[in-house]
Amino acid sequence: AIRYLSKRRQQRVRLIGDTLRQEGFDLVLLQEVWSEQDYGELKGKLAGCYPFSHYFRSGVIGSGLCVFSRFPILDTLLYQYSLNGYPYMLQHGDWFCGKSVGLVVMKISGIIFNVYVTHLHAEYCRDKDAYLPHRLVQAWELAQFIRHTSKAADVVLLGGDLNMHPEDVGIRLLRGWTGLQDAFAEATHFEGCKNGCTLVPDNCFTDKSELLPFPLGIRIDYILYKVTGVSAHQLGVLGVRHCCDPPCPLTQAISSFTVKCEELKTTTGRAPGMDIPFSDHEAVMATLHIQRQGQPAGATLGTADPALADVVTEARAEVGVGLRAARRQRYSSGRMAVLALLLLLLQAAAALGTLAGLGAEQPFPKLSFCLLAFLAIGVLVLATGLHLFHTMEVKMLHGTEEQMWMVLRALQERP
Amino acid sequence: AIRYLSKRRQQRVRLIGDTLRQEGFDLVLLQEVWSEQDYGELKGKLAGCYPFSHYFRSGVIGSGLCVFSRFPILDTLLYQYSLNGYPYMLQHGDWFCGKSVGLVVMKISGIIFNVYVTHLHAEYCRDKDAYLPHRLVQAWELAQFIRHTSKAADVVLLGGDLNMHPEDVGIRLLRGWTGLQDAFAEATHFEGCKNGCTLVPDNCFTDKSELLPFPLGIRIDYILYKVTGVSAHQLGVLGVRHCCDPPCPLTQAISSFTVKCEELKTTTGRAPGMDIPFSDHEAVMATLHIQRQGQPAGATLGTADPALADVVTEARAEVGVGLRAARRQRYSSGRMAVLALLLLLLQAAAALGTLAGLGAEQPFPKLSFCLLAFLAIGVLVLATGLHLFHTMEVKMLHGTEEQMWMVLRALQERP
Repeated sequence: AIRYLSKRRQQRVRLIGDTLRQEGFDLVLLQEVWSEQDYGELKGKLAGCYPFSHYFRSGVIGSGLCVFSRFPILDTLLYQYSLNGYPYMLQHGDWFCGKSVGLVVMKISGIIFNVYVTHLHAEYCRDKDAYLPHRLVQAWELAQFIRHTSKAADVVLLGGDLNMHPEDVGIRLLRGWTGLQDAFAEATHFEGCKNGCTLVPDNCFTDKSELLPFPLGIRIDYILYKVTGVSAHQLGVLGVRHCCDPPCPLTQAISSFTVKCEELKTTTGRAPGMDIPFSDHEAVMATLHIQRQGQPAGATLGTADPALADVVTEARAEVGVGLRAARRQRYSSGRMAVLALLLLLLQAAAALGTLAGLGAEQPFPKLSFCLLAFLAIGVLVLATGLHLFHTMEVKMLHGTEEQMWMVLRALQERP
Repeated sequence: AIRYLSKRRQQRVRLIGDTLRQEGFDLVLLQEVWSEQDYGELKGKLAGCYPFSHYFRSGVIGSGLCVFSRFPILDTLLYQYSLNGYPYMLQHGDWFCGKSVGLVVMKISGIIFNVYVTHLHAEYCRDKDAYLPHRLVQAWELAQFIRHTSKAADVVLLGGDLNMHPEDVGIRLLRGWTGLQDAFAEATHFEGCKNGCTLVPDNCFTDKSELLPFPLGIRIDYILYKVTGVSAHQLGVLGVRHCCDPPCPLTQAISSFTVKCEELKTTTGRAPGMDIPFSDHEAVMATLHIQRQGQPAGATLGTADPALADVVTEARAEVGVGLRAARRQRYSSGRMAVLALLLLLLQAAAALGTLAGLGAEQPFPKLSFCLLAFLAIGVLVLATGLHLFHTMEVKMLHGTEEQMWMVLRALQERP
């Protein structure tokens, strides 16, 4: 929903508001709500059925992330990814959004929920994906952020547009390193686009040429979940959509929960009874059944170790490719800046020489001399900016590569 | 330690390395190690007594943060503050460092430590501190990051250059919102500069004119600590510097710890036996005594509530001041960009008019016409950049103000 650019934006925002009000979900995670006005409109309309909401601000345009909830939001935190495309790729506006992950903490029936909403960097060309290292760094930072912030939570939910196919290395990294489960894969009952696709040719806002290799569409929007370790909370049962079970008596001081996805649904192109869809992506709706159980859930991470090491190795190799490319770009922009500076110095020397009367006459016409100087200044400013940007990029890619290496070492040392 | 700029850098890095090796601390948190080469040198020298270390990469120059430890580092996470000065304030290089907070997780004698190291934006002029809103946002983000990531930790330690006096609103906000205690205030025994100052006139690298209103110096570097709530871990006792007590038998499944600062020391200007100090700031060294206790520690936060609401209100007012200033700057840079664009369009129209033969002759000399156009382009690029930057600044200040408001509401709702 980009103001002035997105097709039939206002109508769709109204439609989304109406539908959310009718459906009465427990929790709604939205992405790409770029305009705070649209958020304000939704907030006003949904005040009755979703009295709690939060909009995450970030970057130049905004993170586009917001949350509406039937239950009180206790706390929030925003983590902006350290890498997110390039500011000079104006046609791919990702950099200007300051892509982030937002966390809202909620307590429902005594169960502490850490709910994460995010939107990763888009994939503009799958065959030659220049943004793969950045998206992988984002997937890694997302996983690390979830791991470090969810230790006191009973249930972790992640929803959003991850811009990755289910078998992509970034998804495997995220799931392997956090232990999150895919609601689509686990759902008892599914209804919607085939294979759970969320970017489908039937949607009139999608770019058909992008989907040529995938005639059914692709699945890039997810609801993931997990229960975390041991906790000592009051008992309660809830569905993200409906409360399904009556609460049962509290028998143990230390216990854990199970989460089961009972139903997963997607929209299918058009909004019911309308000629347009809600958005270019299909909405994903999950009904989760959360129940206290006596014994702590088994450690998902421990059993997935051998596969996890392979995934981290693969991801680290991709980050390494990005690191080498960033280093090349840092070098060439630095060289360009130095050349422009040399040219300027030469020109300054020539001008000073002429002023001091060393040369009999000025060798260049004034206008071209002046134009050349401005050109050199322009190149100097641009190349310096690029050099600074790629220096930051190198640092963040290098830092991520090292963190992954640390994890790999730890995984290999485990029996 | 800035390469090529800082005085006697290499000698001081060697000196720091030698001293750390001699003293044999358990844990060392360094700031302003801007050069990775210096970190590499320290790492090589300290490999024997501090086998575990981590360097946090960030921004153009780097965060300058690193950690050396006798005990294994299990995990790390870096959070870059969303606001950190202005890129065009080249003389105050803070923006280029990408100021951050680094987290390392460690397990010592079965106790889980979350150790945070940070360095906040410098204060260049106390009377008219243009960076106060940014530093307050950083203090807030630091507090939120600690709160959200430390829930599974037994003991939280924070060390670093906070660039705030002990009574400043940012310190009160940080301490009030996290429950962290000040090692200097709690220390049983203190030895070092009067009032625990860490920026003192006796240090030959400090700017004497800055310290004129504070003849004893100021205290802006801190070691803060707290124990977190209930946990169920194996018993252990340790000092950040020395293990002080023998471990006692494990009697309860759920228990907590107490932390006491037994001794706090600072360096006093010169390094022992040398003619120069280690750095422009004095080093702070704490000996902490950590002991398991039967009953969970009292909730520090609960008792500080009325004062906390005042602190948050005060901090929010300061952030509001910054927000209004940022909005003014966003507006004026936007207006400047529009004016430059209008001038360029006018010039383009005039040039086209001349080319089309509408005017009898060109009204301006070519050179000035050309210079004016370049000037307009330059102003347009700069003003657009400024506008984008201040747009981000407004978003982050606004977001923080809203978060603080949410906290205030929650504090007021409590009985």
